[in-house]
Amino acid sequence: MYSFTNDYSEGAHPHILKALMDTNLTQHIGYGMDEDHCAKARELIRKECARDDAQVHFLVGGTQANLIVIASALRPWEAVICASTGHINVHETGAVEATGHKVLAVPSDDGKVTPEMVRQVLEAHTDEHMVKPKMVYISNTTEIGTQYSKEDLDALSRFCRQKDLYLFLDGARLGSALTSSVNDLTIADIAALTDVFYIGGTKNGALMGEAVVILNPDLDREFRFMIKQRGAMLAKGWLLGIQFETLFSDGLFYEMASHANRMADILRTGLEECGYSFFADSRSNQLFPILPDTLIEKLSEDFSFIIQDRVDESSHAVRLVTSWATPEEAVHAFLDALRSARA
Amino acid sequence: MYSFTNDYSEGAHPHILKALMDTNLTQHIGYGMDEDHCAKARELIRKECARDDAQVHFLVGGTQANLIVIASALRPWEAVICASTGHINVHETGAVEATGHKVLAVPSDDGKVTPEMVRQVLEAHTDEHMVKPKMVYISNTTEIGTQYSKEDLDALSRFCRQKDLYLFLDGARLGSALTSSVNDLTIADIAALTDVFYIGGTKNGALMGEAVVILNPDLDREFRFMIKQRGAMLAKGWLLGIQFETLFSDGLFYEMASHANRMADILRTGLEECGYSFFADSRSNQLFPILPDTLIEKLSEDFSFIIQDRVDESSHAVRLVTSWATPEEAVHAFLDALRSARA
Amino acid sequence: MYSFTNDYSEGAHPHILKALMDTNLTQHIGYGMDEDHCAKARELIRKECARDDAQVHFLVGGTQANLIVIASALRPWEAVICASTGHINVHETGAVEATGHKVLAVPSDDGKVTPEMVRQVLEAHTDEHMVKPKMVYISNTTEIGTQYSKEDLDALSRFCRQKDLYLFLDGARLGSALTSSVNDLTIADIAALTDVFYIGGTKNGALMGEAVVILNPDLDREFRFMIKQRGAMLAKGWLLGIQFETLFSDGLFYEMASHANRMADILRTGLEECGYSFFADSRSNQLFPILPDTLIEKLSEDFSFIIQDRVDESSHAVRLVTSWATPEEAVHAFLDALRSARA
Amino acid sequence: MYSFTNDYSEGAHPHILKALMDTNLTQHIGYGMDEDHCAKARELIRKECARDDAQVHFLVGGTQANLIVIASALRPWEAVICASTGHINVHETGAVEATGHKVLAVPSDDGKVTPEMVRQVLEAHTDEHMVKPKMVYISNTTEIGTQYSKEDLDALSRFCRQKDLYLFLDGARLGSALTSSVNDLTIADIAALTDVFYIGGTKNGALMGEAVVILNPDLDREFRFMIKQRGAMLAKGWLLGIQFETLFSDGLFYEMASHANRMADILRTGLEECGYSFFADSRSNQLFPILPDTLIEKLSEDFSFIIQDRVDESSHAVRLVTSWATPEEAVHAFLDALRSARA
Repeated sequence: MYSFTNDYSEGAHPHILKALMDTNLTQHIGYGMDEDHCAKARELIRKECARDDAQVHFLVGGTQANLIVIASALRPWEAVICASTGHINVHETGAVEATGHKVLAVPSDDGKVTPEMVRQVLEAHTDEHMVKPKMVYISNTTEIGTQYSKEDLDALSRFCRQKDLYLFLDGARLGSALTSSVNDLTIADIAALTDVFYIGGTKNGALMGEAVVILNPDLDREFRFMIKQRGAMLAKGWLLGIQFETLFSDGLFYEMASHANRMADILRTGLEECGYSFFADSRSNQLFPILPDTLIEKLSEDFSFIIQDRVDESSHAVRLVTSWATPEEAVHAFLDALRSARA
Repeated sequence: MYSFTNDYSEGAHPHILKALMDTNLTQHIGYGMDEDHCAKARELIRKECARDDAQVHFLVGGTQANLIVIASALRPWEAVICASTGHINVHETGAVEATGHKVLAVPSDDGKVTPEMVRQVLEAHTDEHMVKPKMVYISNTTEIGTQYSKEDLDALSRFCRQKDLYLFLDGARLGSALTSSVNDLTIADIAALTDVFYIGGTKNGALMGEAVVILNPDLDREFRFMIKQRGAMLAKGWLLGIQFETLFSDGLFYEMASHANRMADILRTGLEECGYSFFADSRSNQLFPILPDTLIEKLSEDFSFIIQDRVDESSHAVRLVTSWATPEEAVHAFLDALRSARA
Repeated sequence: MYSFTNDYSEGAHPHILKALMDTNLTQHIGYGMDEDHCAKARELIRKECARDDAQVHFLVGGTQANLIVIASALRPWEAVICASTGHINVHETGAVEATGHKVLAVPSDDGKVTPEMVRQVLEAHTDEHMVKPKMVYISNTTEIGTQYSKEDLDALSRFCRQKDLYLFLDGARLGSALTSSVNDLTIADIAALTDVFYIGGTKNGALMGEAVVILNPDLDREFRFMIKQRGAMLAKGWLLGIQFETLFSDGLFYEMASHANRMADILRTGLEECGYSFFADSRSNQLFPILPDTLIEKLSEDFSFIIQDRVDESSHAVRLVTSWATPEEAVHAFLDALRSARA
Repeated sequence: MYSFTNDYSEGAHPHILKALMDTNLTQHIGYGMDEDHCAKARELIRKECARDDAQVHFLVGGTQANLIVIASALRPWEAVICASTGHINVHETGAVEATGHKVLAVPSDDGKVTPEMVRQVLEAHTDEHMVKPKMVYISNTTEIGTQYSKEDLDALSRFCRQKDLYLFLDGARLGSALTSSVNDLTIADIAALTDVFYIGGTKNGALMGEAVVILNPDLDREFRFMIKQRGAMLAKGWLLGIQFETLFSDGLFYEMASHANRMADILRTGLEECGYSFFADSRSNQLFPILPDTLIEKLSEDFSFIIQDRVDESSHAVRLVTSWATPEEAVHAFLDALRSARA
């Protein structure tokens, strides 16, 4: 049984484990304040951003990063806009609302948010009887595997600045976005166009960890108080520092994400050759092929994956996710199984 | 200038003011604990409910009632389902989210919630990565003037009980619903079919006040702690008791609502005779006629009302609200102005 | 049975009721936005403050005012300092904590907060592992009837400004403080020395209502969103405007508070003449005499009051509260009962 | 420079790192649901508890565990009692208040909570104008290194059950408590006497992790929703399972804690021999000797530690913490430095 369920089914890249081993008995200052690994990782990330003033905070997971960034930025009556498919809207058990803020979800076919969608929300919120929209949350890649072009992000960023809205990019799968064949964005572009974003480690070869990068200094005011208050300040904070230091040394972050994308490319090509269409146009490490139920049943004997959505009476969209750890053989085995099941 | 903006533009019915005057210098126990008026008003409301065990709490306003009822009923990860037009979803500045709970809004053309809508929400929320839907919030009349039939409410109530969901009815405009020409519900029916509801005083001739009626004893556990914590325990609580005592003596509650509905009926008939259609099919004290923009401009010289929604390039739906205090002359003056503007 | 339980056992001063009657059928804009009474009441209060830029918001009650002011001013990790006897610390069912903020209570014998007390709290809160103190909450008169002199308030205000702390004065019983024989403060002084305070109506002859006065413009940013979100925006907001307009016309606010204080003075003198001492040195409308339990029992036959604290095996401190409505005869009757019980 | 600053300055015990290495490329189900390590670790912990029905959840850190356990157990108006030195009261940046709950701190000289302290809190909270105390939070060892005897815990447990209060034990340093020379408690005792507790891994040789053990089934209702909502559900949850599996195989948990205590014993004996007294009577891995400021300055040249509290004009209590990783040489080096500094 091989799992295409997600991109966090294995531990960490061996380089990361080795770095943890090598430093294991060295005493460190805790809470992300060490001058060894956290400081170095911050420096490497600032370089990626081409922004010396970027503030970098290491957190353990994505929901944690989302709720802390959003609750730290907004006043009690302010709300965050996102696509209806947005992770914060659906898959975080109301984490943002639990901090007191409304999530204003806008329908979006491709999982992306456009200036026009935001404009409509702003027009509908006119006075103090309604929440005040103050932030736009986007994911790149999105929850359905699509991604923002530089033009997309540029337009949204300009609109947000014009309307005095913070722009927050959830980069849980940023590696896959940046190494996609259709990508034209860099981390430096994202740093220039957003107020805050994060770089996902959990889904790209770290044991755990997301690096929150704050570009707008208003959003960094006493951010560490918020990290601590929400139970997110890791005692042995250097463990996160070491991982991001390793990720951004020698291009490991990009190398792993490229591998995942390449495995997905092989899968996609194979599926297309068999004539299957897709629920969303993804060039990243998540694919959403629409498959007949009988085929899904057969494939499930040897492979695990999520059944996403019913498409019609006899087929579903499923989700296949590749990762830094996906062996090319697993991909070919899946395609072989697919072909033989159809035969 | 006469205002059809809302049903809370005047003070209170003279009987209510008289009752406040008559008791003004009598010393009372505070916080809604007096044995004079609060106790009597509770008794009268229990009779309306035909439920000796109904618990009745008097609050000052509707948003307050909504947030206290909902936050008191739900555990942190539980959510409330409502129509997308629901007051809690749109017009309460995120009051429910500010208590930590997600509002799951479902699109609804007529402002009502059906078992099918609820079923779809339940099916989409399958595990601990998503909030757990636990309450259904409805308004009667709805925010667009429509109302639940006994059959509607019965079906929804049965579905909620089957699915272990609380059913909460916002009765800010319950008087208008119960005295509508198309109504077949009584307060006793509502008490039998919901877990908690409230009877609106603010929009039906009281200075202020909503009577929350709790039928499900699970929802009454330490409810007064929640009232106090949210700043909603009126020091001179008997002021609310006196008002509800007056409303439910000699049928004043129904009499005032009937008047409001009758005024709306005249307006609706007049508008229909002029050939105008309506945004929603209302038989209550809120009407949503679709009028040409030129007409709206003319009418605005002498009447104030809310412009609700753009319908097409040259017309909008407007909202006309009548109340216990609307003089029949104002209604006729409006229709006269309408007719003369068209001439 | 006459009640000295509190200063909100009766309705409102007849002038207030008359003003409500006179305007009852006039249509008003709601939510505190009317240009008649709310605007006029604001203007009168600004004059009292000698501050044209003071922002004035009318709320229904004290707990509501406290939680809205505090939660609106503080970021999530910031805390409010108060005396251990402070209303927000003890008697509001955790209303401030329910908005997410820690209350840092400091022991205080006389119910007042000094710069030294605040300094100690600041010194103990040194980094992001602890909350950040950001506001000082005081009550005048305090919960035990004591009050701030101009020197007291001046010193505290200077300290707070030096330390970048907001100073918030809860004036639920401000009338009694300002008309006390030992007072040397004016509303204008308070406006000059605090960032925000409120003027209590509920405990000084209004049906209900507290006028929040914001002097520091940082604290007024979108304050109305917070009022609405917490369920505190009264639909018929002019009802509060009318009451404060009446209170600050012809000195009614001061006249009623003076009466209450005068009644308390008679009580205090009588108690002192009988040789009783007091739990706190109050020159306001709350007295805390220490009485033998046998005497308390006898007095309780004809008078109601709160038994505050056990003092020793055979005596308790009780609380006697006078109000604008306390008849002089009731005071003399109490003293007569006291003397005859001792005979 | 050797650090006695805390017990989480190094990584993890080599056995733990090895277990992580050995399983690194195995695919696992995420979120703590794997049948390999999380299930096995749960089974081992249930055995320690001698309770087959104990529910075990793995979290990343202590503040996270505290806020989730408390916020999950309490209704909005309920509060938690703790010692004034309690971690939740002082060192969590208001994490509990940020979930909406008041922390009722009681002064305690030795960092422990007694039934009498709880009784006084209960007596002071009499009605709905105050929060309702519903949980008692204790730490073992406490924040100042002291610990509960079986008699202590038994008495507190009986009192809590009698008063319908939940008893929650924070075991961030439970290892040190259980292996102390003065200890007479077992994990099974604690499981029998509390409603919920946790076993600290972070401070006893794991990379990170706390195992929350729920004995009272009322507190386990939908607990995983709360974990997810607060951003605490680790994607690669098996990483925590592996660590606890290792800790409770072959007694590693106890062995590491014993070592830390033994190192502290040597330090304490040496300090006593030099005639120094202690701020608190600790037999665990935290010591609080009172040292002259001149000595502190000299020792600081080669050792880092926290300066806890000023004791008098020329001395402070400092905190020395030993851990599973403290080499005996470091302890002797400290004592040598101490003796030579005095010479």
